[in-house]
Amino acid sequence: MKIDGTPYRSVWVDQQDGWSVRIFDQTRLPWSLDILRLTDPREAAHAIRSMQVRGAPLIGAVAAYGLALALRADASTAAMERDAAMLAGTRPTAVNLRWAIERMLARLRATPEAGRARAAYDEAAAIADEDVAQCAAIGRHGLELIQQIAGRTGRRVNLLTHCNAGWLATVDWGTALAPIYMAHDQGIDLHGWVDGPRPRDQGAFLTAWELGRHGVKHTVIADNAGGHLMQHGQVDLVIVGTDRVTRTGDVANKIGTYLKALAAHDNNVPFWVALPASTIDWDVSDGLAEIPIEERAGAELSTITGRAMDGSIATVRVMPSDSPAANPAFDVTPARLVTGLITDRGRCKATAEGLASLFPERAAAQHATLA
Amino acid sequence: MKIDGTPYRSVWVDQQDGWSVRIFDQTRLPWSLDILRLTDPREAAHAIRSMQVRGAPLIGAVAAYGLALALRADASTAAMERDAAMLAGTRPTAVNLRWAIERMLARLRATPEAGRARAAYDEAAAIADEDVAQCAAIGRHGLELIQQIAGRTGRRVNLLTHCNAGWLATVDWGTALAPIYMAHDQGIDLHGWVDGPRPRDQGAFLTAWELGRHGVKHTVIADNAGGHLMQHGQVDLVIVGTDRVTRTGDVANKIGTYLKALAAHDNNVPFWVALPASTIDWDVSDGLAEIPIEERAGAELSTITGRAMDGSIATVRVMPSDSPAANPAFDVTPARLVTGLITDRGRCKATAEGLASLFPERAAAQHATLA
Repeated sequence: MKIDGTPYRSVWVDQQDGWSVRIFDQTRLPWSLDILRLTDPREAAHAIRSMQVRGAPLIGAVAAYGLALALRADASTAAMERDAAMLAGTRPTAVNLRWAIERMLARLRATPEAGRARAAYDEAAAIADEDVAQCAAIGRHGLELIQQIAGRTGRRVNLLTHCNAGWLATVDWGTALAPIYMAHDQGIDLHGWVDGPRPRDQGAFLTAWELGRHGVKHTVIADNAGGHLMQHGQVDLVIVGTDRVTRTGDVANKIGTYLKALAAHDNNVPFWVALPASTIDWDVSDGLAEIPIEERAGAELSTITGRAMDGSIATVRVMPSDSPAANPAFDVTPARLVTGLITDRGRCKATAEGLASLFPERAAAQHATLA
Repeated sequence: MKIDGTPYRSVWVDQQDGWSVRIFDQTRLPWSLDILRLTDPREAAHAIRSMQVRGAPLIGAVAAYGLALALRADASTAAMERDAAMLAGTRPTAVNLRWAIERMLARLRATPEAGRARAAYDEAAAIADEDVAQCAAIGRHGLELIQQIAGRTGRRVNLLTHCNAGWLATVDWGTALAPIYMAHDQGIDLHGWVDGPRPRDQGAFLTAWELGRHGVKHTVIADNAGGHLMQHGQVDLVIVGTDRVTRTGDVANKIGTYLKALAAHDNNVPFWVALPASTIDWDVSDGLAEIPIEERAGAELSTITGRAMDGSIATVRVMPSDSPAANPAFDVTPARLVTGLITDRGRCKATAEGLASLFPERAAAQHATLA
């Protein structure tokens, strides 16, 4: 997407040297647009772990490029397996990370050492390009929902999203935001409610920034406000992204998504989840019991970083110095609260049958494994 | 309650001069314990409007003392009515404010000018003392719920509260926190989950500080985390305060309360609301349609104030400079999501019948008005 007119992806290979990997330091947005250069797998792992890059699809792409950087230095099987495991262990909840590493390994294990680095770059580029194509497809399938509402009501469409599932969370377009960008580009009058979400404020920091740079009308709200807005008819549609969807339609996403889904359900507001196929975990049926929820450092909650009045970037503590903080980073929204899933293959109900109708080959493979 | 061993109320008449009114500047907590001196009704109104004092019961008491300060300077009926209206208009959602002013006026209109100032101080003191007694009664009635859970489970009781309904929100004890203080003082093993709530963070700032100073175990969490904790059995009981309860049991409280009530309902976690009788609005039956929701400045959301690493108090912006913010300060939780109400007269269901059973004289008066 564009930043004030200039097109960007969220990860790319440096044009000058042809091998180092470029990303934005997303921990510095919206204050400063810093482009980082990754030159080895440890830097890639650090970028993922420190959330310089985040968002399930982008994490997968950066991990894939991280493995390419590893093989450029040492193409031996031992080094490849070690660095792949290191990269796969950087974040526990997103399934795309594991999926991308496994896809890379499937090709690379079958490739002689001499050709591995080149093959790794090719495969990482394919993962990135496919992500762009998938997000564009998600955008088209989600756009129809917005067009339907605009057509039915004849007035501005109010959408609510939680956290950042925009182009910064993917390689381009985004998942939850892709339909919004497409509707905006078509001239549909729309407005986005953007919430925190605390602790890392990636909605207020990244989604608001993305939408603003692209010219989409939006308003930042507290995480607490979504239910109130829905009670008063001010939300036509909720679209969120996800870090992992079970084969039965349970949705792991940024902490607080479950609360918004409850409010949407209570107020008959459609609640849709946008995802590429790689986010579906075909091995898991019970999201609450089986998806590991990352517990991140309490310091993410006890402090917040923003722009001080003098323009400097400052971190302030926002609770008493002797109070502990707990920081579960994700929650699981049961499928019963999800109106439907918007995938790159189309929309479906958040059920095993719904997903199987769009991905029959995966459902069949899963059935064979279980049988 | 005590601050590191010294007992305090949240509003009191200065012992030295016998007439000025003392409060804590709650916008400075937990960073600094500043005691302010109010000497006229405009200062009292400013303290309420700027949220140096907040919490429905405390607002009522400070407004009452504000009227006493007014009458000390000018006891004429014209001045009294003007300042009463000015004080009553400082905050729209809390019903205690209007209740306290009306109670003051009922006595003062019947008092000759010469005796009005003295009568006003007496009535304000009575309002404050009655609030303390009511909160203590709320504490006793809520304590039974905690004792029941402790007795049934035989392990630590985990409570969740939203915002600050502690002694800083009342004159002493608090509403939602009164049962927690009493249970703690009885030696019951308990732990409080304390959330934000954004935008003003009065849970992380004030509830965490209150509990810490009194020695109650607690953990600060994001507003988003309560539902996840309930899904995983980590919350035995939710107790919140309220700014206004309809005669049918709908509950206006800090924005986000509704989301927690939905999560409690979805996970069979008891959701109780603690309030003194003065918080019941007998004139209102439909909370969603009839309770005005204060829209506060977007700057409360777009910035946050905390302690910088060098120890200074700093305000930082936490969203892009060109993104607008909306800030509804309260929401309404429908009575159907409320397990029950803890009042100074005992516990009841959140229904017209439940409230009428505890307050038959008010329900009868309301019935007479409607007939």
